[in-house]
Amino acid sequence: MNTPRFPLPDINSLPNDIKAKVLEVQEKAGFVPNVFLAFARRPAEWRAFFAYHDALMTPETAGRTSGLTKGDREMIVTTTSAANNCLYCVVAHGAILRIYEKKPQVADQVAVNHRKAEISDRQRAMLDFAMKVCLDAQSIEDADFEALQVHGFSDEDAWDIAAITAFFGLSNRMANFAGMMPNPEFYLMGRVPKVK
Amino acid sequence: MNTPRFPLPDINSLPNDIKAKVLEVQEKAGFVPNVFLAFARRPAEWRAFFAYHDALMTPETAGRTSGLTKGDREMIVTTTSAANNCLYCVVAHGAILRIYEKKPQVADQVAVNHRKAEISDRQRAMLDFAMKVCLDAQSIEDADFEALQVHGFSDEDAWDIAAITAFFGLSNRMANFAGMMPNPEFYLMGRVPKVK
Amino acid sequence: MNTPRFPLPDINSLPNDIKAKVLEVQEKAGFVPNVFLAFARRPAEWRAFFAYHDALMTPETAGRTSGLTKGDREMIVTTTSAANNCLYCVVAHGAILRIYEKKPQVADQVAVNHRKAEISDRQRAMLDFAMKVCLDAQSIEDADFEALQVHGFSDEDAWDIAAITAFFGLSNRMANFAGMMPNPEFYLMGRVPKVK
Amino acid sequence: MNTPRFPLPDINSLPNDIKAKVLEVQEKAGFVPNVFLAFARRPAEWRAFFAYHDALMTPETAGRTSGLTKGDREMIVTTTSAANNCLYCVVAHGAILRIYEKKPQVADQVAVNHRKAEISDRQRAMLDFAMKVCLDAQSIEDADFEALQVHGFSDEDAWDIAAITAFFGLSNRMANFAGMMPNPEFYLMGRVPKVK
Amino acid sequence: MNTPRFPLPDINSLPNDIKAKVLEVQEKAGFVPNVFLAFARRPAEWRAFFAYHDALMTPETAGRTSGLTKGDREMIVTTTSAANNCLYCVVAHGAILRIYEKKPQVADQVAVNHRKAEISDRQRAMLDFAMKVCLDAQSIEDADFEALQVHGFSDEDAWDIAAITAFFGLSNRMANFAGMMPNPEFYLMGRVPKVK
Amino acid sequence: MNTPRFPLPDINSLPNDIKAKVLEVQEKAGFVPNVFLAFARRPAEWRAFFAYHDALMTPETAGRTSGLTKGDREMIVTTTSAANNCLYCVVAHGAILRIYEKKPQVADQVAVNHRKAEISDRQRAMLDFAMKVCLDAQSIEDADFEALQVHGFSDEDAWDIAAITAFFGLSNRMANFAGMMPNPEFYLMGRVPKVK
Repeated sequence: MNTPRFPLPDINSLPNDIKAKVLEVQEKAGFVPNVFLAFARRPAEWRAFFAYHDALMTPETAGRTSGLTKGDREMIVTTTSAANNCLYCVVAHGAILRIYEKKPQVADQVAVNHRKAEISDRQRAMLDFAMKVCLDAQSIEDADFEALQVHGFSDEDAWDIAAITAFFGLSNRMANFAGMMPNPEFYLMGRVPKVK
Repeated sequence: MNTPRFPLPDINSLPNDIKAKVLEVQEKAGFVPNVFLAFARRPAEWRAFFAYHDALMTPETAGRTSGLTKGDREMIVTTTSAANNCLYCVVAHGAILRIYEKKPQVADQVAVNHRKAEISDRQRAMLDFAMKVCLDAQSIEDADFEALQVHGFSDEDAWDIAAITAFFGLSNRMANFAGMMPNPEFYLMGRVPKVK
Repeated sequence: MNTPRFPLPDINSLPNDIKAKVLEVQEKAGFVPNVFLAFARRPAEWRAFFAYHDALMTPETAGRTSGLTKGDREMIVTTTSAANNCLYCVVAHGAILRIYEKKPQVADQVAVNHRKAEISDRQRAMLDFAMKVCLDAQSIEDADFEALQVHGFSDEDAWDIAAITAFFGLSNRMANFAGMMPNPEFYLMGRVPKVK
Repeated sequence: MNTPRFPLPDINSLPNDIKAKVLEVQEKAGFVPNVFLAFARRPAEWRAFFAYHDALMTPETAGRTSGLTKGDREMIVTTTSAANNCLYCVVAHGAILRIYEKKPQVADQVAVNHRKAEISDRQRAMLDFAMKVCLDAQSIEDADFEALQVHGFSDEDAWDIAAITAFFGLSNRMANFAGMMPNPEFYLMGRVPKVK
Repeated sequence: MNTPRFPLPDINSLPNDIKAKVLEVQEKAGFVPNVFLAFARRPAEWRAFFAYHDALMTPETAGRTSGLTKGDREMIVTTTSAANNCLYCVVAHGAILRIYEKKPQVADQVAVNHRKAEISDRQRAMLDFAMKVCLDAQSIEDADFEALQVHGFSDEDAWDIAAITAFFGLSNRMANFAGMMPNPEFYLMGRVPKVK
Repeated sequence: MNTPRFPLPDINSLPNDIKAKVLEVQEKAGFVPNVFLAFARRPAEWRAFFAYHDALMTPETAGRTSGLTKGDREMIVTTTSAANNCLYCVVAHGAILRIYEKKPQVADQVAVNHRKAEISDRQRAMLDFAMKVCLDAQSIEDADFEALQVHGFSDEDAWDIAAITAFFGLSNRMANFAGMMPNPEFYLMGRVPKVK
């Protein structure tokens, strides 16, 4: 796809609230992750998407605590996005996962086969649940919740795992549909001691 | 599941903005669809969910026109939710589909096998695309867009089809995860000439 | 498919025994379910099909008792026919299921996701077995029979479950092959207190 | 399964009509194929099963001609029964296929991979259609019938292919469910120039 | 495929070491199994392929003992090659399996459905493990090794099962790719008391 | 898996020829890739494995030229190993792919979704063929070869694609079976301008 079907809009063409948020992200990250522009063609969807994202991924902004760590959340995203063959999310969230977990190899590991990854038993159980929500939510049953409880996950934590998986299932489908490509910057983030 | 793992909250316990919207829906529909309560346990997620819903399902509220009719949109939801074995969405959105399309049999038809449903060739193409986004988004390619164009769907329409499918894929997973049940009222809506 | 590939024959063109049975069904139901006409193009197959149907679905006509109720049997048909995406059987047998079980919502529930349906644990076990026969009969093993026995099903009952599933697997494939459509009357049967 | 769950009944315990047919088959084949005994525990089902079998597999007994040869029919059975992993039908009908086609290797070939079998292009198209009815009947569409027409198959021939596939899909599920084993005699039939 | 895409080379055109081995096999078996010629178009691959084959299938030539019998090994090949729909390997190794196990029916049984085959519980466990390596190696976990240990298989035996399965997975893909056909002689070997 | 089921042998315990090769690789790469040790527990298998590897991956050592470049070959390995969820091969061969192609992002791209990767149309066709050999070799047909020919691939090139895919299918299954982990060094190779 040489000419993109859904070209990224120019930052200056965006509504003010979206433009402000994009510039804030750019300031912080040093670049604008493509998802911020790709969804901006539709401002109402953009606002809902990032509101949902923040409610799940930064629960403290929603006045909520969570039994999942930041690293747990990104690990769920990376693992289930790989199951959905979503290049954007695996590369972008794999980068953030490496940073939060301070483990430069973990993203590649969970993306290829979470059963072989060097993660805790608790994280393995978390990912098993996430993968069932991702691929076979219709069969979720009590036994799946019980397998989480063994590792200390509450039903609220289960909701977090499920909701993050479900939300990125949406994101994965849109990214694959729209041909969204990861920014080059993501590929190397968290892999080397110091990334400028 | 006799005792629900995630019981529906009492309306009076909800934040004011959510309570107001719930009462408005109740006024209009005669009952509160369970999804409005099920998600309300988490207000920030509730607000994002329904903002996203409205941006896609009532594009005019987002200042947008769409090449899809109201009936088209509900048909996408009913068809893909059946592929995801989501009881809540098939029953609730099947009801709305019957009303919009004024075809009391169409929801059952697309839910069981959209290829055998009495719908237009244009709607058949729309559902074929939606099903690919639902089940195999990673393989979407130019030929899929071209199959839509034959029936007059633009790339913006394709975005609508994909986004509705992706959004309800999220909803389907959450409903299956949380054991969300459809309100009894939905089952009969749009099946008989006059339902009070 | 505007012009049907396999048009339904005229009742008056049918052999006498078939015509008599068709008229009897019409008298009782108020209409002729399309399957009675669709198969009648081939009288020998028609006779075998309905003889088999009756041997399984009305065992008392075969001088046999069964541990399954009438409702159980229709529930198996509706559930497995949905797994086979057979519009005719889901709609027609869903109607009869609603009537026998006196539960206007149960057919839609088992058709979309039997794991979420409001049925007994015994019926859930019955449907789990039926779904395995439907989708993975090659893997049936002792443990599957034992799961039935927990709920009081004998090996003869297991035969009933398997045979009903297998027979309607035949029916589902023929209906999908031939494009058999359900009569409009079925869609509403058993949903409202009184259907003429 | 050392002690069979569904032991074969003694011939002398069978109803007279069934006993007569069983003895006739024994006379002709030199042994009683197990399916004749396995289904005989349920006489009404036995009668319907074999009436259906004969209507499809010996259409001349139903006063019907068919565009399929005897060998074609057994080839459909062997191929689709292998897809359903049914030991009884692959071995028993593979034997008859070898005899009718006078090709001692053809049964093994179509059972393992019909795309690699030494059969005509016409038979290849026939088996492609049968496999779609067997594994994905819900997706049958006009293009599938057209692929048959290229090789001279009429819609009536398509019905034959579909009905044989669907009927043996029933048989495959019952054989797998009941643990029906092929008679030792079948394994060698049609493989060597002269089998007594 | 009338004209083969990859015709078998003439024996006399082969490098001396390969020619010598081919003639040795011909002397012993009475014919040259096609795999010896099919791979010989590429001598380096031929040498590696048969060295690997011998290391696994005749471990004593590698100075190794194994907990698997000759019959066990051929049973793994026949079963997993059928799962991969490889005509060459099912027919050729099914022949050798019949001879080693002295059971003329066992190859057909495991090829169609190893769960229904007349084999020992130990062999059933061995084949369950092999099938998981064949179809779902990414999910192999400790429980799978433990299921083998119940029947006395060591981790070294597990390696044998896995390696044979993996090696013939290579062979199956190449045979299907290249359209390799079994020699006619294989079909009957081990089926009758005496093959000339 | 804290204690590895199949611990890597000490280099000094290896047969001389294997030890020499391992030391040569260590000299060249700066470390010993784990596959060289993992397979070395079985010297005969080790020798065959690497002979096969070299015959396919460095055809010039086998006196053969190939229409595939070094980068093409590693791209096939990375893509199909990801389809097989093989952590070792994705990470190790992804590293080599980055180096050969001089594209630090290409390995992550093809591993997640080769359809979205920034590769040539010719490479896309090559990977489509490889994925069919990997996942559905039984259905390979003339049309698949023709799709390669459009891009200039000969039948010999097709053999290369198939054989590399098949060989690494073996490797993937063994690595998943044995829990083989990639050396830490691989993760970063080819990602940054200069890796010592």
